[in-house]
Amino acid sequence: MKVGVIGLGLIGGSIAKELKHRGFATKIKGVDLNAANAKAALELGLIDEFAGDGPGSFNLNDLILFLEDIELIIVAIPVDAARKFVPEILDHLSSKQVLMDVGSTKVGICSAVSGRSNRKQFVATHPIAGTENSGPRAAHVGLFEGKIGIVCDAEESSSEALGIVQKIYNMLGMRIIRMDSAQHDQHISYVSHLSHISSFALALTVLDKEKDERLIFNMAGSGFESTVRLAKSSSEMWSPIFQQNKDFLAKALDEYIERLLAFKQDILEKNDNSLKMMMLDANRVRKILDGQDKNEVKLDLIDE
Amino acid sequence: MKVGVIGLGLIGGSIAKELKHRGFATKIKGVDLNAANAKAALELGLIDEFAGDGPGSFNLNDLILFLEDIELIIVAIPVDAARKFVPEILDHLSSKQVLMDVGSTKVGICSAVSGRSNRKQFVATHPIAGTENSGPRAAHVGLFEGKIGIVCDAEESSSEALGIVQKIYNMLGMRIIRMDSAQHDQHISYVSHLSHISSFALALTVLDKEKDERLIFNMAGSGFESTVRLAKSSSEMWSPIFQQNKDFLAKALDEYIERLLAFKQDILEKNDNSLKMMMLDANRVRKILDGQDKNEVKLDLIDE
Repeated sequence: MKVGVIGLGLIGGSIAKELKHRGFATKIKGVDLNAANAKAALELGLIDEFAGDGPGSFNLNDLILFLEDIELIIVAIPVDAARKFVPEILDHLSSKQVLMDVGSTKVGICSAVSGRSNRKQFVATHPIAGTENSGPRAAHVGLFEGKIGIVCDAEESSSEALGIVQKIYNMLGMRIIRMDSAQHDQHISYVSHLSHISSFALALTVLDKEKDERLIFNMAGSGFESTVRLAKSSSEMWSPIFQQNKDFLAKALDEYIERLLAFKQDILEKNDNSLKMMMLDANRVRKILDGQDKNEVKLDLIDE
Repeated sequence: MKVGVIGLGLIGGSIAKELKHRGFATKIKGVDLNAANAKAALELGLIDEFAGDGPGSFNLNDLILFLEDIELIIVAIPVDAARKFVPEILDHLSSKQVLMDVGSTKVGICSAVSGRSNRKQFVATHPIAGTENSGPRAAHVGLFEGKIGIVCDAEESSSEALGIVQKIYNMLGMRIIRMDSAQHDQHISYVSHLSHISSFALALTVLDKEKDERLIFNMAGSGFESTVRLAKSSSEMWSPIFQQNKDFLAKALDEYIERLLAFKQDILEKNDNSLKMMMLDANRVRKILDGQDKNEVKLDLIDE
């Protein structure tokens, strides 16, 4: 299959690398607004050729022309750009082409394509995988192994388009869950987006207080390193995600702050029992995350 | 050297294991209020014998008797218990014995021993190492390799006592930094204690919202797993730490919540520039934590 990847960062680059690695893609064309990224993706062998007069240079017409022999187009760009470009690309698809995105918010993109004549050729997805690193050099095989790929508003997509996405995601080692786009955005605001903000805010609090970088470096082994890992994430990617998910996220933040204030109060008042109860309650994440219940965690898998 | 370890959890157990492993301790006696832990420590070979009539059973007189042929006593118990027991043990030391603790708060313990006649035989330390796991089964060789060991209020300890601690910490692969106990508690409230509360509160927020454990499990790859790792930590250990460091910690929490509110406001008002500026600022942790400046990060090492 001939595959086009728009956006050659960690996710787009890793999918490209996997599809070549597994011999699924006979040809991969790529495009990235960042000329250095496009060039690196070619040098790294993630793609076979890139669009435009030179790396990183293209307009919509050029892009459509560049992608005309492509059967599957994967959009892996920041969610604000995706919301703008996906409907335009969709309108120019030939009847045999399938378009999918991999963004971290799904209501925005699904509203943007709603009612378009080619809507059925588009599949809204979110592979739950990533690292705090970005760019084509961070791309690697194995990123998606054992992870979950969420497909949103599947009833709006054709079974052919869904079948292709299913096949690719399974090939990458992912299990697929279907979900309503609003449901997705709400769940992900708690489990992912809130985590990122908690991490960014923690980094800023510590960096602001501790002017001596040596001290931070020396004391990072005490837990900071893990909680602050996500604060390394790309602002270009995350700012639009937070904005697109602002209502769910604001509510999640309110609830989080409420919990922090409960800790503060119990600490100041030395309510030892209440503090321990909260922590014991929080300890339940161990069982969930360590997957001690893995066998019992039955997934709503789509096995078509 | 004959070594006694009071508290056979992750830290006490790992130190015991290292000292035996490296042949430094000719004999290790251990004690733990938790009978199962004491027994496990013996079975795992972390210690050679345990105190009391049976595992976990002892009183102060028994303990003093049990430790009378011991040259170095390491206290690795929750900080509230350490604050209570360390002064009592100190008062019963023979002139050749050295006592050290490894707790995460240092003002409390240093005040508790202040002015005692044997004060010079005590060294207040904090090895900046740990995992979210606890108990003797979590103990392992290598835990301290490359980490920092903080020695507080060193001027209150004799050079002989400091020399023994220095020797052991260097043997375990740690570099030593000296610090005032109040300075220590303030710094650690930001870099470690705040991280733990941010993680506990995040776990509670998500667990409260997401009743479906499958969803949390499935979406955890999206960043949650890393930020919430510390929420697996022991409430018995952390509740007293938070309480002993309440003033510094309450202030750190206030500053953290202020940052979270700044994110919330910018997200709701879609202040893209301001959001990106904050994240770019937070991104500085990458350089610090990845140690790109490792060579430039000159440490105030004690090389006596």
